[in-house]
Amino acid sequence: MPIRKPNFTPPFNIVRASHIEFDVRDIAKSRAFYVDCLGYLVTDEDKDSLYLRAVEERNHHSIVLRKANDASIPALGFKVASEEDLDRAAFWFAHKGFPTSFPDVPHQGRTLRTCDMFGMPLDFYFRMEQPECMLRKYAEYKGARIQRIDHINCFTPDVQASYDFYTDLGFRLTEYTETDGENGQLWAVWMHRKGNVHDLAFTNGRGPRLHHIGVWTASSLDILHICDVMASSGFLDNMERGPGRHGISNAFFLYIRDPDGHRVELFTSDYLTVDPDHEPLRWSLQDPQRQTLWGHPAPKSWFEEGSVFTGVPVREPVLEAQPIVAR
Amino acid sequence: MPIRKPNFTPPFNIVRASHIEFDVRDIAKSRAFYVDCLGYLVTDEDKDSLYLRAVEERNHHSIVLRKANDASIPALGFKVASEEDLDRAAFWFAHKGFPTSFPDVPHQGRTLRTCDMFGMPLDFYFRMEQPECMLRKYAEYKGARIQRIDHINCFTPDVQASYDFYTDLGFRLTEYTETDGENGQLWAVWMHRKGNVHDLAFTNGRGPRLHHIGVWTASSLDILHICDVMASSGFLDNMERGPGRHGISNAFFLYIRDPDGHRVELFTSDYLTVDPDHEPLRWSLQDPQRQTLWGHPAPKSWFEEGSVFTGVPVREPVLEAQPIVAR
Amino acid sequence: MPIRKPNFTPPFNIVRASHIEFDVRDIAKSRAFYVDCLGYLVTDEDKDSLYLRAVEERNHHSIVLRKANDASIPALGFKVASEEDLDRAAFWFAHKGFPTSFPDVPHQGRTLRTCDMFGMPLDFYFRMEQPECMLRKYAEYKGARIQRIDHINCFTPDVQASYDFYTDLGFRLTEYTETDGENGQLWAVWMHRKGNVHDLAFTNGRGPRLHHIGVWTASSLDILHICDVMASSGFLDNMERGPGRHGISNAFFLYIRDPDGHRVELFTSDYLTVDPDHEPLRWSLQDPQRQTLWGHPAPKSWFEEGSVFTGVPVREPVLEAQPIVAR
Amino acid sequence: MPIRKPNFTPPFNIVRASHIEFDVRDIAKSRAFYVDCLGYLVTDEDKDSLYLRAVEERNHHSIVLRKANDASIPALGFKVASEEDLDRAAFWFAHKGFPTSFPDVPHQGRTLRTCDMFGMPLDFYFRMEQPECMLRKYAEYKGARIQRIDHINCFTPDVQASYDFYTDLGFRLTEYTETDGENGQLWAVWMHRKGNVHDLAFTNGRGPRLHHIGVWTASSLDILHICDVMASSGFLDNMERGPGRHGISNAFFLYIRDPDGHRVELFTSDYLTVDPDHEPLRWSLQDPQRQTLWGHPAPKSWFEEGSVFTGVPVREPVLEAQPIVAR
Repeated sequence: MPIRKPNFTPPFNIVRASHIEFDVRDIAKSRAFYVDCLGYLVTDEDKDSLYLRAVEERNHHSIVLRKANDASIPALGFKVASEEDLDRAAFWFAHKGFPTSFPDVPHQGRTLRTCDMFGMPLDFYFRMEQPECMLRKYAEYKGARIQRIDHINCFTPDVQASYDFYTDLGFRLTEYTETDGENGQLWAVWMHRKGNVHDLAFTNGRGPRLHHIGVWTASSLDILHICDVMASSGFLDNMERGPGRHGISNAFFLYIRDPDGHRVELFTSDYLTVDPDHEPLRWSLQDPQRQTLWGHPAPKSWFEEGSVFTGVPVREPVLEAQPIVAR
Repeated sequence: MPIRKPNFTPPFNIVRASHIEFDVRDIAKSRAFYVDCLGYLVTDEDKDSLYLRAVEERNHHSIVLRKANDASIPALGFKVASEEDLDRAAFWFAHKGFPTSFPDVPHQGRTLRTCDMFGMPLDFYFRMEQPECMLRKYAEYKGARIQRIDHINCFTPDVQASYDFYTDLGFRLTEYTETDGENGQLWAVWMHRKGNVHDLAFTNGRGPRLHHIGVWTASSLDILHICDVMASSGFLDNMERGPGRHGISNAFFLYIRDPDGHRVELFTSDYLTVDPDHEPLRWSLQDPQRQTLWGHPAPKSWFEEGSVFTGVPVREPVLEAQPIVAR
Repeated sequence: MPIRKPNFTPPFNIVRASHIEFDVRDIAKSRAFYVDCLGYLVTDEDKDSLYLRAVEERNHHSIVLRKANDASIPALGFKVASEEDLDRAAFWFAHKGFPTSFPDVPHQGRTLRTCDMFGMPLDFYFRMEQPECMLRKYAEYKGARIQRIDHINCFTPDVQASYDFYTDLGFRLTEYTETDGENGQLWAVWMHRKGNVHDLAFTNGRGPRLHHIGVWTASSLDILHICDVMASSGFLDNMERGPGRHGISNAFFLYIRDPDGHRVELFTSDYLTVDPDHEPLRWSLQDPQRQTLWGHPAPKSWFEEGSVFTGVPVREPVLEAQPIVAR
Repeated sequence: MPIRKPNFTPPFNIVRASHIEFDVRDIAKSRAFYVDCLGYLVTDEDKDSLYLRAVEERNHHSIVLRKANDASIPALGFKVASEEDLDRAAFWFAHKGFPTSFPDVPHQGRTLRTCDMFGMPLDFYFRMEQPECMLRKYAEYKGARIQRIDHINCFTPDVQASYDFYTDLGFRLTEYTETDGENGQLWAVWMHRKGNVHDLAFTNGRGPRLHHIGVWTASSLDILHICDVMASSGFLDNMERGPGRHGISNAFFLYIRDPDGHRVELFTSDYLTVDPDHEPLRWSLQDPQRQTLWGHPAPKSWFEEGSVFTGVPVREPVLEAQPIVAR
């Protein structure tokens, strides 16, 4: 039976998905995309890195861009609840045989660097610098008026294995896609820590790779406006899918690609999942409305392309490639 | 040279596109679509007809549904500025050799019934019954909260001929699509009387046929909501294209098909065109953003399908079938 | 009987309210307000003047700011339909004994400068320079994303007299406020040329003075956003009334004051009035919902303050000062 | 020092504010308000009670209306994380000397009924019936399209005492108002369990009394629309304050009163507070923007009126009555 009970007493307390590091080939191009077009706020920058946050975020950064030769992803950041949780996490990962280290990470406190069984990089930290909050400085709201990072969505070669691993760490399932038939198999899972639909999601595919990060806006009109802006200011080719409504998660979405192909989902309007008896919602892999309530086909690239993690080999998925369900 | 100066002294004064009659095969099904789903207000009904208006409209109806064996369109309604304009119109059409009559039309005053040179039916009238205005009765706003009819869009076998004809009648060009090259030919035209982008538009294609009527909502969120409603209450297959942004006319749009296949465009946010020196905007037929600013392909049905006018033969177009420009 | 039939054959053809000149005491402060905060586009500027337009406008300017010692208003601009209409207008005003001149006005063609019987300044013109249209350059949409000028609203010492004068010029009544009782008297009138609720409105009060210019946004969310921006970036005291919904005109509104006290209404969502038999809507002066559907009181300043026209004496009104109807 | 550290190891685990019972004098009138006007979904009803939920809620009810002679409030409902938490809660309250009982409550599992030191009623439960979820049945979204209950806001005679009590129970402070001066005293506190600005808030005043329940909508346009609906369908007098923007909590709000005077806040757009090191935001009692960013005065009723809890005596507040800060 693939669906398990939530683990309400995990070995350490993860609070939420917090930030990501993108290796990019041209910081100036990335700046034009994230800052000038999307409206991200710059907290810090030098010639090789750019620290960005959204208007609600108290943390120093939710996106870090670093100049590199290859557009891969060195780190996914998760906040834990205390310094003690960091020690418990370090113990747990070391005990399970995963590599652990505490590298110096600028603008953050102690940071545990480790990975999961497929090599997906995981950074855990408790403290980060907190510059002045911009939430009430409305004149600084630009572009898509993005408020905060919401989640991280990855390809995994084995959804059941990833689901089991992160369930042990306390992530709770909210929605899932299953193949039909007697021995239905998990195709995709949406899991949360912070109380909405997800902090972390996995889809069957060549992995581990990042599918996208999801960032939240207060209104769907913010998403329609950034469509207009992108389409009329040289970013048309960066618009990959949407705007539209997912069946899964209820989200109104737009998927865009940054200049290095890293994918960002702008979305709004999911729902509250804090109740411990919140029942996960099952979707059949055959139901096209799970992906797009309004019946729009998604492009092939959306199903297949993703960002590799720096230095992490990619494996073939356990289940056969997903049938692309067009309307 | 295909583009002409506006005619500011037309033979009679057309005010605006006003209403349409749809022959439908099942009034109950049409009622479920227009009233229960879209939120149209019922002004009058009997077993074989249904009179509908939108929340802002003072007129008795902007859509009339009539039970019939075939789903064709018997009448397109235009309001003229006075009873005298009606007489001038009757004289002008008769003088040009078009059939004219003054049939009794329920809920309207004197109505001139005639047609253009391709047989496209034209009803002109000045007076219509005006029931109580619902604009300020916000509790009656349902579904898509449609405010008013805006325009009528048709296939014509000869865009240049239709453009010339309606220019003579005082319609003014706001935007147009032209084939490229030295002898560019008109592919599509948007023409108005009331001061926004259009009351009447023509596209090259098998015609005359109705492509769609356009109806106006106050907010793009009304259009996103009706997408959710349609997709989750049995009308998914009636959603044909969108939501999206046209380059042409600047409109945020959704195209839907009623149970008989008649097409309705929900749209919002075009612009003011009352200035007599308002320059028409040219689009190249090769520019994919004219149709969809955000790069979405449109389905084949949208390019090819339309509603025939009752008893009017359809001709092949002068120009070759439109290349479907997908992204 | 105070309400008259529309004049469909006016002595010359006014197209719409087009622009305004504001004399201001500090161009830099005005620039911070109109450009940095509201998002107006700068078409031209020198040390003593600033030419502004909104995102949809093809005209060179809809607001002109000029450095002056006093914050008065030298000109209200109306577009006419042709150069011939300008000559007809000049003849009509001269014939009625009004002063007429054709001063050189930068960026405009021939401009007739005259006034009405209370001295309210009137500039008529047909041609204005047309820089590149910005409607589809969405990345330039800033602040309140104002699309276009919509109307001019003035205090007059005699509403009936102003109503009669502008009715003769072809303005058509859409809504009006009347005192109750057997001999109801006009208190306020909304009149249009372009086909929506108004181009020009008059309210009883010390006049002639400008009450406000009205500028149109596509969404009420644009108005909510500019409230947030103004309140958090030093412009709180410039917010005078709203946001709210008028009963009259159905508009969602916000009234703001520029650094010199000139009043601007941001508004959206009125309705179409092109039908020649469009019946004006009467409001009783005792009905508080005409001013604010939601029951909010308006501040005393809104009822009493306005901008004087340069060099034009202000008279006491014919009717007693308006009772301020609070909820 | 009035501000304390959060208690991350409370005696039992409260998940969130969950529901409220309103005693009302006329169920039919309440039904017209909550169901016909606001759009609440009816889960169950008989002649003396009505069970309501919002479109996202999986619980059987978030509002219960009961026929009674007096319009008081018998119960405030909070969800705990498990049946064991219920036992821990019963032990804790009994041990502290509070009355505890486990009455039969329809549609809920075991329910602990107790109160705080001012007699404010508290119902704790873990299980509630879960009818079919309506989140994706968009055709059922009516009126204000309310998605879920968010918080409960009460007057307390002693804010510091209430703050201390609920801090012990694990509620975490997000924002607070303090009197100025050397010995600043807590005037109002906003506290959460579920990870946004609040589940429970207290303001200094005659208490304990309910100030309002807060319910969440996805868009500020839903709130503008319900203003129009209420104002034009007989509920104008039920609109007490707003719409507007709070400084505190960042919420776009509307306060309305039900037919018995119970207050409901419709609101949207607060922010995420799950980080354990999320710093509470201090507001001076002298800062008028804490209450209304845009500078609108609030009516006296909003500062003074509230609903009593059934059978619970009301005490005078420790601090003097709040100065009403008008602009």
